[in-house]
Amino acid sequence: MQQTYRIPQLIDIKQAYQRIMAYIHHTPILTCEAINTIADCQIYFKCENFQKVGAFKARGATNAILKLPPELKQNGVATHSSGNHAAALARAAKETGTKAYIVMPSTAPAIKKAAVKHYGGEIIECEPTLKAREAALEKVVEETGAAFIPPYDYMDVIEGQATCALEMWDEGIPFDAIITPVGGGGLLAGTALTTHYLSRKTPVYGAEPKGADDAFRSLKANRIIPMENPDTIADGLRTSLGQRNFTIISPHVEDILTVSDEEIIAAMRLVFERMKIVIEPSSAVPLAAVLANKALFKNKRVGVVFSGGNVDVSKLPFK
Amino acid sequence: MQQTYRIPQLIDIKQAYQRIMAYIHHTPILTCEAINTIADCQIYFKCENFQKVGAFKARGATNAILKLPPELKQNGVATHSSGNHAAALARAAKETGTKAYIVMPSTAPAIKKAAVKHYGGEIIECEPTLKAREAALEKVVEETGAAFIPPYDYMDVIEGQATCALEMWDEGIPFDAIITPVGGGGLLAGTALTTHYLSRKTPVYGAEPKGADDAFRSLKANRIIPMENPDTIADGLRTSLGQRNFTIISPHVEDILTVSDEEIIAAMRLVFERMKIVIEPSSAVPLAAVLANKALFKNKRVGVVFSGGNVDVSKLPFK
Repeated sequence: MQQTYRIPQLIDIKQAYQRIMAYIHHTPILTCEAINTIADCQIYFKCENFQKVGAFKARGATNAILKLPPELKQNGVATHSSGNHAAALARAAKETGTKAYIVMPSTAPAIKKAAVKHYGGEIIECEPTLKAREAALEKVVEETGAAFIPPYDYMDVIEGQATCALEMWDEGIPFDAIITPVGGGGLLAGTALTTHYLSRKTPVYGAEPKGADDAFRSLKANRIIPMENPDTIADGLRTSLGQRNFTIISPHVEDILTVSDEEIIAAMRLVFERMKIVIEPSSAVPLAAVLANKALFKNKRVGVVFSGGNVDVSKLPFK
Repeated sequence: MQQTYRIPQLIDIKQAYQRIMAYIHHTPILTCEAINTIADCQIYFKCENFQKVGAFKARGATNAILKLPPELKQNGVATHSSGNHAAALARAAKETGTKAYIVMPSTAPAIKKAAVKHYGGEIIECEPTLKAREAALEKVVEETGAAFIPPYDYMDVIEGQATCALEMWDEGIPFDAIITPVGGGGLLAGTALTTHYLSRKTPVYGAEPKGADDAFRSLKANRIIPMENPDTIADGLRTSLGQRNFTIISPHVEDILTVSDEEIIAAMRLVFERMKIVIEPSSAVPLAAVLANKALFKNKRVGVVFSGGNVDVSKLPFK
């Protein structure tokens, strides 16, 4: 059975941008001569590591809350996440005058919990299993009436993430290709949609760790193959591709390129050393993919999205 | 005996900027709400960590070479340095079509030597003593006819570093104070001079590690007290204040503020975590000084110069 969804149109994405622009940063696009020389192409880095809460997730979370009907919004929002979506939702709730309930596994890093608390989010701890997480979320939603905002498999979230590419195309750069990381698929789906509307011929690629290559396998198989036991340093990309995300990515994404953790770490190091900016491992995956596929991108103008910058600086993977 | 020097005037600094602008980056000024909240003031970070070779040193080195008479320039330039000036001079020489001879102690980190070689500089190794360094430099100059370009105690270098503050004031921000790190004093002297010409009432501060506080002690004593056995993580600031630098800093700098290595590391971490950018320990010293002197800067618009971003990312001081 194939579920059908209403896919956001260009007008929806533009309206989403108007809706959220007062709450987010218009992030810069940076270039780096040294990396261009190494990569043999012209790379334009969209720096969502400088975004509010340090990740593109601020876009989708804000859009989703602002689109809730008032009678739903007043009861707050809820999600389960131990990553950037948790902080993004907590902040978006605070900024838009509502409350966020975040279900987190008791094993979540203290720094992630602190970020949620910093934005006034209420943390509900649970056992670190999917079952416990879903049960805890269900209980919160039942007790509070909060609206569940999933991290990626949700059209208003995808629509929000699509505003990142809107900003990229607004810069007037004639990208020959765009590449983003893919985990749950919110950013990749959003980027592919916007690019489909604004520059139909420009191929959009997803970049994925070999140790969490469910999007790669799902696209080849033309059906979702969930990720079991992901093993990668790119902690933001361990999740499985969502249904709605697959529906958009499948027709609109040219290919998924996979890279090893070694390649991810090398690309991440290049960015720290040459660009002097802080990115999390997930952000380095597209650059690693460009470097691993030089023939594909040779002499092209390539848009690369740095998805976020939330990394424990006391535990960087550089030797 | 008091040596007198011809101090660069505003017109000299403006001409220096015209001279070097094709060879350097106009670096951005960034702000960070989270740090402003913590610091209780409005900080404008001038990001020379994004400068060519990753440090403001590109300015002075380029200016000094471009001001050499052709008959001197054709024989190349020479210096002794194991820090950012070495790479800056090597790059400036390459970009302006001459040769650089860099005397480096045999103990200099491989990464620093690699940077000099990357820009085509010729490295002359010597024993890690001041005497051996000076002897090696003298020999190179004698053999090649190269012009010695000192790292900071040299007016054309100071004039070049003064262009950093020129860019800052060009942004139209009415700074209530400006603060830079102080090691040899090139950046601080240049910043103080430009600010003296453009906004006489705005105080300029130097920030220095407690473990290398010769500028602090020299200003109090009103004579140069060289640094012996500096002990600080801020490797760029272990040098002693230069003569020419002292001559300018003494009348034009409001005060030198000193901070502990602990405070430097905490400020550096704030910048990595909240601004998502890479700075070297020396760059964090002014921010540490602002945070340690909140009453002095409360509610003010403070210009803080990040002097550079060259740090070994595999050995960051975060626990």
